[in-house]
Amino acid sequence: MAPPRTRRPRPGTPGQVLAWLPDGRPADVYSAPCPSRAALDRIADKWTALIVGSLSTGTKRFSELRAAIEGISEKMLTQTLRSLERDGLVSRTVHSSVPPKVEYQLTELGLTLDEPLAAVRDWAERHINEVNQARLNHDLRASSSE
Amino acid sequence: MAPPRTRRPRPGTPGQVLAWLPDGRPADVYSAPCPSRAALDRIADKWTALIVGSLSTGTKRFSELRAAIEGISEKMLTQTLRSLERDGLVSRTVHSSVPPKVEYQLTELGLTLDEPLAAVRDWAERHINEVNQARLNHDLRASSSE
Repeated sequence: MAPPRTRRPRPGTPGQVLAWLPDGRPADVYSAPCPSRAALDRIADKWTALIVGSLSTGTKRFSELRAAIEGISEKMLTQTLRSLERDGLVSRTVHSSVPPKVEYQLTELGLTLDEPLAAVRDWAERHINEVNQARLNHDLRASSSE
Repeated sequence: MAPPRTRRPRPGTPGQVLAWLPDGRPADVYSAPCPSRAALDRIADKWTALIVGSLSTGTKRFSELRAAIEGISEKMLTQTLRSLERDGLVSRTVHSSVPPKVEYQLTELGLTLDEPLAAVRDWAERHINEVNQARLNHDLRASSSE
């Protein structure tokens, strides 16, 4: 077997190889069939970012998550929680009470995702006025050149 | 005017207030109508993460971006670049040559997004084997309880 390369194989895509797949290929989000591309698709998602942030303060019930994340539909919350559970990021505990109490919390793996997603949420808030100003300028230029 | 609160107003949503909107409200991605929610939707996106990463190594032409980001359609690349341009994250330069040469690069604002999105891309690669293992366990449990 050839010695592992330490940089990603695709041109124009920066970065070190961070993990090796069981088949010996490097994990590479720039490669369409790499499973890390599909994982990126799930974590680079508004609802995932908001759910993980909300669970970062502790265990929550479904209704508490819905209240914290204004505008999320019941269907979207259910679906995103199921996908996070399947990916090992969120665990779901059913307490045997009447009615049963269901709680969600971040797993150890889910906790490692909190920092990167917090940085993305924070970016959106920190830079929103600059983004809005850029859009205004862009739309003014577009309408004046019509 | 009341003195500004320094923590976000919604219950269960952690974090300091990072910016104030022109109308005096705090930027809050957990608030559905806040413009930062729409900004989060655009930056928490697989294609944005891949394009910003690819431009982080320098100016690129459309064809170079398409080659770097395996599997992106021409339509999706065009659409995402336009939206990034409008939001002030990417600038587009047309060089007057025959045929005209069009180049894309990150703006100063776009450069500030590189680090958070790199962390998200890196997470997907670094933890892909754990995610795959979790899914395998989850699907095994699901099929054995059927």
